[in-house]
Amino acid sequence: MEVKYLAESLYLSVDPYMRAYAKGYTIGQVMIGIQVAKIIESKNPKFQVGDIVVGNFGWRSHTIVQEPNNYFAYLLPEIGTLSTSLALGVLGAPGVAAYFGFLDICRPLEGDTVVVSGAAGAVGSHVGQIAKIKGCRVIGITGCEDKARWLESLGFDYVINYKTTKNLAEDLKVGAPKGIDCYFDNVGGDMSTTVMELMNQGGRVSVCGSISSYNAKNPIRAAIVQPAIVSKQLELKGFVSLQFRDRWMEAIGQNLKWVQENKLKYRETITDGFENATKALIGVLKGENVGKAVVRTKSAHVEHESVDFNHALSKFRKIQGL
Amino acid sequence: MEVKYLAESLYLSVDPYMRAYAKGYTIGQVMIGIQVAKIIESKNPKFQVGDIVVGNFGWRSHTIVQEPNNYFAYLLPEIGTLSTSLALGVLGAPGVAAYFGFLDICRPLEGDTVVVSGAAGAVGSHVGQIAKIKGCRVIGITGCEDKARWLESLGFDYVINYKTTKNLAEDLKVGAPKGIDCYFDNVGGDMSTTVMELMNQGGRVSVCGSISSYNAKNPIRAAIVQPAIVSKQLELKGFVSLQFRDRWMEAIGQNLKWVQENKLKYRETITDGFENATKALIGVLKGENVGKAVVRTKSAHVEHESVDFNHALSKFRKIQGL
Repeated sequence: MEVKYLAESLYLSVDPYMRAYAKGYTIGQVMIGIQVAKIIESKNPKFQVGDIVVGNFGWRSHTIVQEPNNYFAYLLPEIGTLSTSLALGVLGAPGVAAYFGFLDICRPLEGDTVVVSGAAGAVGSHVGQIAKIKGCRVIGITGCEDKARWLESLGFDYVINYKTTKNLAEDLKVGAPKGIDCYFDNVGGDMSTTVMELMNQGGRVSVCGSISSYNAKNPIRAAIVQPAIVSKQLELKGFVSLQFRDRWMEAIGQNLKWVQENKLKYRETITDGFENATKALIGVLKGENVGKAVVRTKSAHVEHESVDFNHALSKFRKIQGL
Repeated sequence: MEVKYLAESLYLSVDPYMRAYAKGYTIGQVMIGIQVAKIIESKNPKFQVGDIVVGNFGWRSHTIVQEPNNYFAYLLPEIGTLSTSLALGVLGAPGVAAYFGFLDICRPLEGDTVVVSGAAGAVGSHVGQIAKIKGCRVIGITGCEDKARWLESLGFDYVINYKTTKNLAEDLKVGAPKGIDCYFDNVGGDMSTTVMELMNQGGRVSVCGSISSYNAKNPIRAAIVQPAIVSKQLELKGFVSLQFRDRWMEAIGQNLKWVQENKLKYRETITDGFENATKALIGVLKGENVGKAVVRTKSAHVEHESVDFNHALSKFRKIQGL
């Protein structure tokens, strides 16, 4: 039985983590990455022409998918009039990373003080807003004034521009007079050591990324974290969003609800044209994007054939064998 | 009602962590530290003259203790003919640190590969032996050949001398062909980064200390740990033994059982004379001790009046309000 379908890319995801993978690539290898694609041919009765799929197809224009697939591909659930590109951001892997990476690992309590580094990125800005929804005081660290203003508009209580601050530790003390309970770390390095030294006993650190190191030729060095980990009995945990694959749709569903309730805002930086994907990635690594960076590979307006959420969820579960 | 007793020190504990505290001390302050003491006067019917108590009395010869006390003082349980000094080592706080710090935080499974840094110290040598009891492969990192031979005699499967190795990472790969699942860290710094980079997905790191930093004037710098934490989804947790105070006697009881069964061996480095305590501490920081370092403040042989274990346990619980 033929069970293949052919998907044409609409949007490619551009993420900081790609830099780490690209280091080991040789010319000719397909760059890793999730994309939103439209099914343009199908011999699989479960997938119709016009359906929108999200999958880890990498940076390529067309993908033949045969079930069961290794692409972690799933049908995009019903998202109304929202852009399908959001399946790469607030309603995709970064949204899942923010949701579980923060709630499961930082275990925030109402009234906790939360610090987010890389706060204006897709994951960071999302985490800060979940923290506000959960009743926390939220401090964001970012690298430019425009981003800082945007974070304030999202409800962040205190925003630090690490490029212009004279003393990050002193700024953090002002922003976190009761100390820091949770730290959501996208950056690593000295910034993270400084944050951890100001944490309260039993603080929780969710380690989502280490942007500071991705583009470095040699290992980045920084003041060590172990003294703070011992003296404050901190807990650090690293994660990747795919480790939450069996609860993926729980996060997508809740994030969609918050977006629809206007509690969760997002920004996208859209670069047009497949050929500009590397330029977009370099921009991300330079911190030029605000919110989720994506590449639009089809410039024509895409008619989005949305599918019912519960229907998509049950298909997703079946495909993933859950 | 008079409830005081007077205790005279027999043994003072000498531990690497003291260096971190001493930094903030002014002349005249009492050095922190647990000691074994003998009650020489008592107006408290629960404590008899001759009873042996263990308490965080600091480095002093005599202590007046009034219940409830702030010294975390408890009666030494029945330990037969064993030396009361062990209440500072294998049957004391280092033993509690090894027991809970390893079992609760590293959560070792049979067949796991475990690395212990500072392996010849009181806690490290204890952790390695628990790991062997639990069916793990155990690699110890230490700084001298004598200590290495001792660790081998304890059953460590592979011992690395970090001072003479040409390449710690390569040595670790030889010792841990299946990768590292658990890391019990006493040292911190570059050594720890190297170990973490060789850990398996979901590895657990118990952060007990960071000896590498205690004696430094400026913060120690090392290759950052965040890339390994993210890519292997590691979990790190710092702890101090006192956080396990409500389960303290569980660890003491099990460690005593292992000692009596000859499954758990220990060494002590005993320095005679109160006046040599600072010398002993400097020796610990230089790595001169093997096993637990203690100072014997009374040179005369001490007749140990042991008390019944369950009796001591119930008293301990009452005093701690458990």
